[in-house]
Amino acid sequence: MMYASKYLEEAVESISRLPGIGKKTALRLALHILKSDESEAFRLSEAITKLRTQTGSCKICKNICDDELCEICKSNSRDRTTVCIVEESKDILAIENTSQYNGLYHVIGGTISPLQGIGPENLNIESLTERVSDNEIKEIILALSPNMEGDTTAHYISKKLVDFNVKISTIARGIPLGGELEYADEITLGRSIVTRTLYNQE
Amino acid sequence: MMYASKYLEEAVESISRLPGIGKKTALRLALHILKSDESEAFRLSEAITKLRTQTGSCKICKNICDDELCEICKSNSRDRTTVCIVEESKDILAIENTSQYNGLYHVIGGTISPLQGIGPENLNIESLTERVSDNEIKEIILALSPNMEGDTTAHYISKKLVDFNVKISTIARGIPLGGELEYADEITLGRSIVTRTLYNQE
Repeated sequence: MMYASKYLEEAVESISRLPGIGKKTALRLALHILKSDESEAFRLSEAITKLRTQTGSCKICKNICDDELCEICKSNSRDRTTVCIVEESKDILAIENTSQYNGLYHVIGGTISPLQGIGPENLNIESLTERVSDNEIKEIILALSPNMEGDTTAHYISKKLVDFNVKISTIARGIPLGGELEYADEITLGRSIVTRTLYNQE
Repeated sequence: MMYASKYLEEAVESISRLPGIGKKTALRLALHILKSDESEAFRLSEAITKLRTQTGSCKICKNICDDELCEICKSNSRDRTTVCIVEESKDILAIENTSQYNGLYHVIGGTISPLQGIGPENLNIESLTERVSDNEIKEIILALSPNMEGDTTAHYISKKLVDFNVKISTIARGIPLGGELEYADEITLGRSIVTRTLYNQE
């Protein structure tokens, strides 16, 4: 495609590098920016720069944050005896949205994946063992992806923590709300029967 | 949703103001930017600012361009006797991509729409009549949207140009490639019969 303006071309090129955005969508967005208020465009541009330069990660749990420690690690009202292990910061957002968890988090930054060359040493697992040995942590909840990499990582972490006096649990696998039994895969359905819960406890 | 960082929140807020991008997609894009190279984020940010500040419109046809005149108006190899009227710059891109047109363009910036308070005076039509009266233009092609607003605008332009010695044509309406007759609306199908072309000319 031949663009009439090299700035338009550069903007389309840059926007289309974002995940899930192709050239056509990028062009639509660029033309929208071109038509919108100048202040709006500056705000977007500045937000992107600031996001990249001013945002860091929490010293303790590696969650995205602006200061040395994140709000959750700093908070006095959270249960400091429970730590939930997640792959990415966005998983924290998802769990926080449920309002069902009041403990702390630990972001390991991915899962062990030999095929992609990601070993335990590339993940933030070493600091987890330090954290467990130093603190009053009583339970570790594994909230990793329900796939082979997630299971491998869960297995690795549970072995690492075997010498510490902590309970290790994993989030329940089962039939999601609205899911139909006949479309569930046999592993999930099988596991949901084996790990069934008492009706009144649910 | 409670974001862990105010810069992340600001970025999600700004990105989600773009058309067709909701909060969830905005968060995904923001987290991608956070993880990507710093140079990549700067490039995107700069591209947005430059797009908004450095890009103007062609003095003659109002197409998006960086200089006073666009490449098409400046070009010596284009047919200067034909002008195609389009609503937006992106329509020029679409027509240029067909490689079937070698004339000039004129962007009027929308269609007459009383409901949205857009009258002929809000569009770039006055400069069109000046252009037709000054120049060697022989044919005006109307390539406007096939809806009521487009038809109204086409009618208005054709009346404005009635005193000039120019041929006024409109792009063909008909069954698109791959379209099935039974699903075509009766107006399109009816028009495609009335404006049928000789088999060999097609």
